[in-house]
Amino acid sequence: MEGVDHLAHERSKAQFDVDQMKVVWVGSRHALQVSDRIARLVASDPVLRKDNRTMMTRKELFKNTLRKAAHGWKRINELRLSEEEASWFRHYVDQPAYTDLHWGMFVPFIKGSGTEEQQKKWLPLAYKMQIIGCYAQTELGHGSNVQGLETTATFDPKTDEFVLNSPTLTSSKWWPGGLGKAATHAVAFARLITDGKDHGVNGFIVQLRSLDDHLPLPGITVGDIGMKFGNGAYNSMDNGVLRFDNVRIPRDQMLMRVAQVTREGKYVQSNVPRQLLYGTMVYVRQTIVSDASTALSRAVCIATRYSAVRRQFGSENGGVETQVIDYKTQQSRLFPLLASAYAFRFVGEWLKWLYTDVTQKLQANDFATLPEAHACTAGLKSLTTSATADAIEECRKLCGGHGYLTNSGLPELFAVYVPACTYEGDNVVLLLQVARFLMKTVSQLPSGKKPVGTTSYMGRAERLIQCRCNVQKVEDWLKPSVILEAFEARAIRMSIACAQDLSKFSNQEEGFAELSSNLAEAAVAHCQLIVVSKFIEKLQQDIPGKGVKEQLQNLCNIYALYIIHKHLGDFLSTGSITAEQASLANEQLRSLYSKLRPNAIALVDAFNYTDHYLGSVLGRYDGDVYPNLYAEAWKDPLNESVVPDGYWEYIQPLLKNQLRNARL
Amino acid sequence: MEGVDHLAHERSKAQFDVDQMKVVWVGSRHALQVSDRIARLVASDPVLRKDNRTMMTRKELFKNTLRKAAHGWKRINELRLSEEEASWFRHYVDQPAYTDLHWGMFVPFIKGSGTEEQQKKWLPLAYKMQIIGCYAQTELGHGSNVQGLETTATFDPKTDEFVLNSPTLTSSKWWPGGLGKAATHAVAFARLITDGKDHGVNGFIVQLRSLDDHLPLPGITVGDIGMKFGNGAYNSMDNGVLRFDNVRIPRDQMLMRVAQVTREGKYVQSNVPRQLLYGTMVYVRQTIVSDASTALSRAVCIATRYSAVRRQFGSENGGVETQVIDYKTQQSRLFPLLASAYAFRFVGEWLKWLYTDVTQKLQANDFATLPEAHACTAGLKSLTTSATADAIEECRKLCGGHGYLTNSGLPELFAVYVPACTYEGDNVVLLLQVARFLMKTVSQLPSGKKPVGTTSYMGRAERLIQCRCNVQKVEDWLKPSVILEAFEARAIRMSIACAQDLSKFSNQEEGFAELSSNLAEAAVAHCQLIVVSKFIEKLQQDIPGKGVKEQLQNLCNIYALYIIHKHLGDFLSTGSITAEQASLANEQLRSLYSKLRPNAIALVDAFNYTDHYLGSVLGRYDGDVYPNLYAEAWKDPLNESVVPDGYWEYIQPLLKNQLRNARL
Repeated sequence: MEGVDHLAHERSKAQFDVDQMKVVWVGSRHALQVSDRIARLVASDPVLRKDNRTMMTRKELFKNTLRKAAHGWKRINELRLSEEEASWFRHYVDQPAYTDLHWGMFVPFIKGSGTEEQQKKWLPLAYKMQIIGCYAQTELGHGSNVQGLETTATFDPKTDEFVLNSPTLTSSKWWPGGLGKAATHAVAFARLITDGKDHGVNGFIVQLRSLDDHLPLPGITVGDIGMKFGNGAYNSMDNGVLRFDNVRIPRDQMLMRVAQVTREGKYVQSNVPRQLLYGTMVYVRQTIVSDASTALSRAVCIATRYSAVRRQFGSENGGVETQVIDYKTQQSRLFPLLASAYAFRFVGEWLKWLYTDVTQKLQANDFATLPEAHACTAGLKSLTTSATADAIEECRKLCGGHGYLTNSGLPELFAVYVPACTYEGDNVVLLLQVARFLMKTVSQLPSGKKPVGTTSYMGRAERLIQCRCNVQKVEDWLKPSVILEAFEARAIRMSIACAQDLSKFSNQEEGFAELSSNLAEAAVAHCQLIVVSKFIEKLQQDIPGKGVKEQLQNLCNIYALYIIHKHLGDFLSTGSITAEQASLANEQLRSLYSKLRPNAIALVDAFNYTDHYLGSVLGRYDGDVYPNLYAEAWKDPLNESVVPDGYWEYIQPLLKNQLRNARL
Repeated sequence: MEGVDHLAHERSKAQFDVDQMKVVWVGSRHALQVSDRIARLVASDPVLRKDNRTMMTRKELFKNTLRKAAHGWKRINELRLSEEEASWFRHYVDQPAYTDLHWGMFVPFIKGSGTEEQQKKWLPLAYKMQIIGCYAQTELGHGSNVQGLETTATFDPKTDEFVLNSPTLTSSKWWPGGLGKAATHAVAFARLITDGKDHGVNGFIVQLRSLDDHLPLPGITVGDIGMKFGNGAYNSMDNGVLRFDNVRIPRDQMLMRVAQVTREGKYVQSNVPRQLLYGTMVYVRQTIVSDASTALSRAVCIATRYSAVRRQFGSENGGVETQVIDYKTQQSRLFPLLASAYAFRFVGEWLKWLYTDVTQKLQANDFATLPEAHACTAGLKSLTTSATADAIEECRKLCGGHGYLTNSGLPELFAVYVPACTYEGDNVVLLLQVARFLMKTVSQLPSGKKPVGTTSYMGRAERLIQCRCNVQKVEDWLKPSVILEAFEARAIRMSIACAQDLSKFSNQEEGFAELSSNLAEAAVAHCQLIVVSKFIEKLQQDIPGKGVKEQLQNLCNIYALYIIHKHLGDFLSTGSITAEQASLANEQLRSLYSKLRPNAIALVDAFNYTDHYLGSVLGRYDGDVYPNLYAEAWKDPLNESVVPDGYWEYIQPLLKNQLRNARL
C-alpha cells in the first residue's frame, strides 16, 4: 500500500482551486515558490531531522541544536540564500535556538536603538555571526514591570566607563534565550546612574564571553535556568541567568539613539523622539500574530486530517464506521479553529501593512496614530496567542487518545507555543493597556475628537448604542454588514458600560483596578471586532481562483458566528442581538459547517506544510496513520530490550516474594 | 533567613480554623491523621524523591519507577500498612506506575466480573503481587466504541480452549498501562466466537509473560507504544501494544460472572444481571472525580502561594510592589478555580456515597436508579476533568514566566492530568450519553413519570419554565434558593429547547446527530447544577470549626456566580436571569473575591500538602521562592560545564568564520 493516498477521496471533493488558496495563505505567488522550495530543502536534509527530538536528553538536544544552527548557517552561506530565503530556512528548521534571539531581537534592537556609529560597529559583526547576541531584559523579580528592573549601570567618569552590577538576587537576569550557553554578547538592560541620579532603564551592549574560549569574562556569572515544559520544545533553547559583579564597559556601549551620557557624565535626551522605539515593539508583536496563525494552522492541519482518517461508531449494519470529522460535535470544535487560523492569518497580514505605515509616519514625525497602532498590536498579540494556545490543546483532544503520543506532534507544538501568552507582554497586562486606550477614546468622544483606524467605529457611537440587529431569518447572518454591526455594537456598548461604571469611582485608578476584569473583556470584544473586520476587508479584495473567495467567505462567517456563540453573554447582555437571533446564528453555523465539510482537507492542504515540518504521524499527508504509529512505537528506547532494564532488581524479587531482604 | 516563613503574615490573616478545614477537605479526622502520617513518611524517604524526575531519560525514568514500586511494596509490607494506608502511600508516591492498573483496574475487574471460583484462584495471586495484571481493552483502531473491538477469542471445543488472535493491524491492543513492560497477566477484551457465531466483547485472563524470565509467551508480541506528553509525567508508565497470534488459554479464563461458555461451546447468560458491571464503571468514574479535585487543588495551591509571593508594579512611590494576588484580574481567574477545587471535592464525596447506594440497590436487584446514577457519574467525570485540565494550565499562566519552568511543578501536573479527559470515556462522548438520558427523561414528563435523584428538579418543569429570577439587589445573589433556581431554570429550559428542536426531525437519530453540540451544552448545564446543588447540600450539614462554614459558603457562591458569568449566554438566552441581574451577580462576585482574599493562603494550606507532594518551587509552603529557583537552575545538566558540549564543533568555527570546510 506504500505510496497510496488514503485521503485522495477527500481531496477529490474540494470545490475550489487549492493552488490558488496556497497563494492566498502565504501571501503571494513568489512567497509560495520560495517557501515551498526551502521547505523541501530543509525536509530532505538528514542533519535537520526532527523525529528523534523528544527522546533526547537535555544535553543531547542542546548539542543537536547547536549542530543544526551551524549546519543551517553553513548551508545558507553555501547556497547564497537571500535574507528572505534564510529566514524561511530557519523557520522550517523548526527548533528554537539561540539564533532566534540573535536575528529576531539583538540585531533589530541595535538597528532601532543604536546610533549610526554604533550600528556601523556592531551590525557587521552580528550579520557575519562573528558575535552571537541575546536580549537580556527580564530579571528573576521583574518581567512585566520593565521600569522596575534592578540591574544598575553606574557611570564612572574617571575611566569613562559604565560599571554593571546585580545588586540583589532578584536582579539576576533570568529567561533571556541564548544567554545561558551560546551568546557572546548581550543587549542588557539596566538602570542608568550618573552622579548618583537614577535615569531609569537603558540598553547596553555587554560582552559576556571570551571570543577565544567562550569562558565568561571577569565579573560575569552566567548559566542555564533549567528544564522547561514539554519534550523537546523550548528545551533546545538555553534560556539563561546572568549576574554582574562590577563589570566595566566603555561608555560608547550604551545604546544612545534616544538618550546619551556625555564624557562628563551628563544624561541628555537626543533629538530622536522616544516613540521611535515603539516601532520595534509593533514589529515584534506583529510577527507574533503571524506566528500564531502558523502554529494554529499546524495543529488544525493535524487534527483535520486525522479526523478524516479516524472512524468510530456508526457501523451497526456492518459497513465501515463513520469518519469522526462527520460528527457535528467534532465539526463544531474543529472548524471554528480552522476558520480562526485563516482569520489570524489575514489580521497578521494587515498588521504587517500597519507596521510599514506606522514606520513611515514616524519617520515623518507624525505620531498621531501611534497610540492606536500600539493598542491594536498589543490587543491582537494577546487575543491571537491566547486563542492559539487553547486551540492547540483542543486539537490534541480532538485526536483522542493518540493525540497524547509525542509522535502526534501536538504535545510539543503546545509546549513550545504556550510561552507566547507570557513573553513580549503578558496577555492580561496587554488587554488592560488596550482597555486604558479604549477608555481614553471613549472619554474624548464628547469633545468631538474623531477616533482613528481600528477605533473609527467609535465615532458612530450614538447610532451603535441604539441600533437593533436586523436579523430575521437564518440567511441574514450571512450579510457582512449585519455581522459587523453586531460586533461593533457589542464592543462599543461594553466600552461605554465600563466608562460609566468607572465614572462612579472618585479615584479613577482605584476604579480601573476594581473593574479590571470587565475592562479586559471589553478589550477582547474590541480586538475580536478587528479580526472580523479585517477578514471582511480581505474579502472585498479581488481574489482569483475558482471557488477560493467562496471558501474564505464561509470561513469568515464561521469565525464570526462562532465568536458570537462563544461570547453570547456579551452580545445578549448589551442587547446587541436577541436570543432568537442567537438561535438563528447557531442554525446558520451548523449549515456553514456542512458547506465546509467537503473542503476541509483541501483547506488544510492549502497551508502547504511538508510532513517534516508538521512532524506528526496523525497529520501525515497520505493519511497512512496506523501502520506508522505501529512502526514508531518500536523505536522507543524502552523497546531496545524485550525484558526491561530493572526487571531483575525490581520485578522478579517482587513476584517471587523476595523483596523483604532486597536492597533497593 | 533559613526557616523563615515568608507567608506567615498571610497566614495570620485567616478568619477561620484551618485545622478544621483540613478535616472537611479530607473527609474525616481519621482520614486526616492517616493521610498526614503517610504523606510525611513518603516525603522523608530518599528513594521516593521526585525533584530529578523531569531530567531523566525514558529508560532511567522507567527503571526508577520500577524501583519506587518495589520499594513501596516492600515498605508497605514491612510497616504492615492497612489497605487504606497502602492506598495513601501509593497516592503520595505520585508517579504513574503499572501498580495503578494492577490495583485500580485488574483487581477490581476480576472482583466484579469473575465467578467466585475465579476470584478465589486469581485474587490471592494478585493481592500478593505474585502476578502483575493490566487491563487490555483499547485497541489501535477502537477506543470509545468498545463494541467495535476486533480482537477475537474463538472457542476450540476440541481442546476446551479459547484461541486469541489479532486479525488486523488496528486490532492491536494499544494504550493499556503496565502492559508494555511490566505486566505478567492481562484482562484482555475480545470478541467471543463460538461455533462461528460472534457473541460480542468479553473479558479474558491471559498470561503474557513467563513468570521465570519475563519473556513473552509464544504467540504474544508486546512492547511499549512510545513517548507521551510532557517531561516525566506518564512516561513513567509503560502503556503498551499487544498482538495475539493463536494464543491458547483454558476455557475457565473467560471471566464468567454474567455470561459463560459451556464445555460444549454454548454461550449462556448467567442469572447475574449484566447491570452489575456498570457498578464498576460508576466506581472508577467516581474516583476520577475525586482525583480531579486533588489535581486541581494542587495547581491552585501552587498558583495561590506564588501569587502572594510575587510582586509587580504599584511602587511608584518607592515602597514595595503590589502582590499579584491583590489584582482583580488575578483574583477573577484564580479564586473561581480555588472554589472549583472545593466544589469538585464535595461532589466527589457525594458520588462516593452514591456508589455505595447503587451497589446496595443492585445487590437487592433494584435497577431503577441505575440509569440516573450512570448518567450523573458520566457527566460529572466529563465536567470535572475538562475543567481541571483547563484550570491547571490557567494556574500555570497565573504564575507568569516562571510557571513555564518544570520546577514550578505545573507543566508535569498538566501533562500527567490531561489524559483524564480522554480515558474512561471521552468527555464529549460522555456528555452525549448524559444528553440522551436527559432527552429520555424530558420525553417521559408528560406521562407523569417522576424523575429521580439529580433529575428530580425536572419534575418541577412547569414552574421552572415560567419562573422569573427574583434578584433585585446585589445581596440577593447570596441566597442559595435563588442560585439554585437560576441553575435549575437554565438546565431544564436548555433540555426542553433541545427536545423541541429534536421533535422537528422525522428521524430522531439524525436529529440527535445534527443537534449534538446543543445537546452537549444542555448536559453541561445539568451537570453544573448537580455540582452547585451538592455544594449547597454540604452547607446544610453541621460543620464545626470557627469560620469554616462561612468560608465554604463564600466558595460556594463564588463557584456558582462564576459559572453564571462564564455561561452567561445560556442564562440570558433561556431567560433564566436578566442582563441587569447578571450585572448584579458580577458585582457580588467582586465583593466575594475581597472576602476570600485574606483567607486565600489558609484555604490552600487546608489541602495539607507536603512540599514533596506539591513538587513545586513556586508553591513552597514557606514562600521562599527566588533563592530556590536560583539554586535549582545550577542543577541542570547543561550547567555541568561552563562551556557547553558542542562549543568547539558548532560555535567556535561559526564565530571564526571557519564553517565552510567543517564537517558537521
